[in-house]
Amino acid sequence: MTTPTTHTTMHRAAALLSIGDELTLGQSLDTNSRWLSARLVDLGIAPVEHATVPDDLGVMVAAIRRLASGSDVVMLTGGLGPTADDLTRAALAEATGDHLIEDAEALAHLERWYAGRGRPMPRTNLVQAQRPSRARCLPNPNGTAPGLAATLTVGARTVDVFALPGPPREMTPMFETWVVPSLRPDPSRAVRTRLLRVFGLGESDAAERLGPLMDRDRDPMVGTTASVGIVTIRMRAERAGNAEQAERALDETETLVRAALGRHIVGAPDLPEAVLERLRERNETVAVAESCTGGMLAASITDRPGASSVFAGGFLTYSNAAKSALLGVPEALFAPEGPGAVSAECAIAMARGCLERAVFGSGAHERVTHALSVTGIAGPDGGSEDKPVGTVWIARASRDGSSIARRFHFAGGRGAVRDWSVRAALSMLWAKLSDTDDLTLLRELERVER
Amino acid sequence: MTTPTTHTTMHRAAALLSIGDELTLGQSLDTNSRWLSARLVDLGIAPVEHATVPDDLGVMVAAIRRLASGSDVVMLTGGLGPTADDLTRAALAEATGDHLIEDAEALAHLERWYAGRGRPMPRTNLVQAQRPSRARCLPNPNGTAPGLAATLTVGARTVDVFALPGPPREMTPMFETWVVPSLRPDPSRAVRTRLLRVFGLGESDAAERLGPLMDRDRDPMVGTTASVGIVTIRMRAERAGNAEQAERALDETETLVRAALGRHIVGAPDLPEAVLERLRERNETVAVAESCTGGMLAASITDRPGASSVFAGGFLTYSNAAKSALLGVPEALFAPEGPGAVSAECAIAMARGCLERAVFGSGAHERVTHALSVTGIAGPDGGSEDKPVGTVWIARASRDGSSIARRFHFAGGRGAVRDWSVRAALSMLWAKLSDTDDLTLLRELERVER
Repeated sequence: MTTPTTHTTMHRAAALLSIGDELTLGQSLDTNSRWLSARLVDLGIAPVEHATVPDDLGVMVAAIRRLASGSDVVMLTGGLGPTADDLTRAALAEATGDHLIEDAEALAHLERWYAGRGRPMPRTNLVQAQRPSRARCLPNPNGTAPGLAATLTVGARTVDVFALPGPPREMTPMFETWVVPSLRPDPSRAVRTRLLRVFGLGESDAAERLGPLMDRDRDPMVGTTASVGIVTIRMRAERAGNAEQAERALDETETLVRAALGRHIVGAPDLPEAVLERLRERNETVAVAESCTGGMLAASITDRPGASSVFAGGFLTYSNAAKSALLGVPEALFAPEGPGAVSAECAIAMARGCLERAVFGSGAHERVTHALSVTGIAGPDGGSEDKPVGTVWIARASRDGSSIARRFHFAGGRGAVRDWSVRAALSMLWAKLSDTDDLTLLRELERVER
Repeated sequence: MTTPTTHTTMHRAAALLSIGDELTLGQSLDTNSRWLSARLVDLGIAPVEHATVPDDLGVMVAAIRRLASGSDVVMLTGGLGPTADDLTRAALAEATGDHLIEDAEALAHLERWYAGRGRPMPRTNLVQAQRPSRARCLPNPNGTAPGLAATLTVGARTVDVFALPGPPREMTPMFETWVVPSLRPDPSRAVRTRLLRVFGLGESDAAERLGPLMDRDRDPMVGTTASVGIVTIRMRAERAGNAEQAERALDETETLVRAALGRHIVGAPDLPEAVLERLRERNETVAVAESCTGGMLAASITDRPGASSVFAGGFLTYSNAAKSALLGVPEALFAPEGPGAVSAECAIAMARGCLERAVFGSGAHERVTHALSVTGIAGPDGGSEDKPVGTVWIARASRDGSSIARRFHFAGGRGAVRDWSVRAALSMLWAKLSDTDDLTLLRELERVER
């Protein structure tokens, strides 16, 4: 680790600035701020604010100066592209009282980048070799835009400012390689956070049980956030002293939190991971048969490394024909007088068909332990008086012979109906894997039923 | 539409403030700011800044006042929950020089909410019935937290401040029902934006072709953003005059942009939609066979309303056994001396098996026109020297007898490998549907190959 000798301010507080009209106009989602914040917390630096501003030079300069006045390090993302609306280089120069020059090494990188791809370098890209004269370029092996590292003087303090490219796959490796070694968290001020997740309890139920643990002036501080069926309990120790003391304080608090919330605590950060964890513990497997969720349930499971040890795959049976041909759902169900594709009968037939037909393993064709099915009307079209948009039947069938189907009515449009259907399906499996009562665990999901 | 008579400031500029430690600490992703910004732009109000601050009363009060000083309307989200770290009610009272009282109607709503669910109301929730004495509550049919509408005086101006719950499914209906009717966009200052999407061209190639259209002082203003293979061209007319004039100016600019970018322009906002659009035009259908993407490819397609008219579903064949049993991939491919699951042979066999076995339609079992397959090593485990993590084979097979397989090497971790695999598979289908040369269209994807 290199510690520059010219300025030795500790990096206690960080501010993040995301730049781009596409962000302020709501055309793109900023995921960089979350990623950077989580990494800074890991490193012991407290993120104190995120701000997002448009591609406007004056606004950018003012924001950089304002954020620098309240923090020790500022992370800019975006605005380093090759086009006329990419103004971060100019804003950083102006905010630090500097001017732009061409960086020979950055130019050579650009030329190599295009030569290696057998393409001429568009003239436009030349601006990406510019930097404020007192800044240094941060190499970008994953794109054409180098990052920048500069310093800004605020009164007697020197604030470090890093400018990183907007695309996450360029930003994150640059942060790890070039920014992390330059960060100077305060070794005497240990900030440690810990999370516990709770399933099957509402946020206010959890808060009631936690009682005085949630007092605002308590140290460590305990906070809660509810998100789609999981309540996250955050514990944060921010105090003078070494990291070990902070960890010990968190250990004590964690013991009290666990005692208050008992069996509702899941180890995993979210529901898919909690389900995978239980399946692994029980040495069981699952397959899926999806209609209206069209791959989302499987995608939420396979999102996790190691899913292949418990997830067999399954069937995407978007059409009635596919439900019959691939899962053996009786065609009579779809006849005019039949219950139709969105029914308990169809959901159960899909789950049972999936249980019989899904295979696991790479050699002998093993059977799976559980199958989940989802069939519903995600909308915006396809609803009827009997079965309005948002009506979803979800079923589970298991090798032990048990099966269950349940109807939900989700509100909030196609995306929300699909999201909640995935949560509900995973919750039904989690209930089975916990050998516990479906109704208690699904209580929080009832909040979203009409 | 009700126009309050007490203050008639136009809402030209909006600022957004997201509140919560879970956001500043990087534990949750803020999606509300994007959603609100896009809606405000639709309504003719310009979002000028997003800010995110922790659950800290003083910081929240300062942020509300600062944002109010630079805008006409401020939207707060989050911090209205029932627990001790939910401080938005108190911050809004302090920022507006007010104090909190209990709102009888909000209390009645809370009592009805819990009674309707057969549960006792936790005492904790009582704070959700509080509001600053001069503010009004905004009803929340989807949760326990009412929103708040208040005003803040900045010099001679009156700035409207709305506080909305953090969960998107509570926030968005509250915005539509209670905030939109209270907004007063300037009818004389029409802000109109328009987007065009470009596929198969890099951002700097697009900028070269657009030339002076991208000058920063041009009106309408033209900007670009690149995201996973699609370059978005933003056109924005912000001028005095009626909306019709702004639209006419955008019409002219759009004609020039279209002339510059030609066949690279796709109508759809993203690649899945572009593919669906082409399939519908050609009256063709597609099915998928997914291994390492495990449902993500199908989920990206079925994310769109109306996908059922062209998407048949498919097979999630995560294990080798499933590839053989469900798709007829020869087991010999998986033998020690065989090419293995991540190979051209396996990808082609998966695509052909899917083409033969997928069915479409609700009555007669129709065959599909195209099948896509994905098989690769998403990581973090499973890589080898020959086939490192990120190696993905993607194949397309079509009813006309054509088929193609292509190997990719994606960098950036499991999530990135899966995301890029979906893009690459859709790109290969798009190329086929455009009757054009695969290599040109996939050129941008080559940026991510090792």
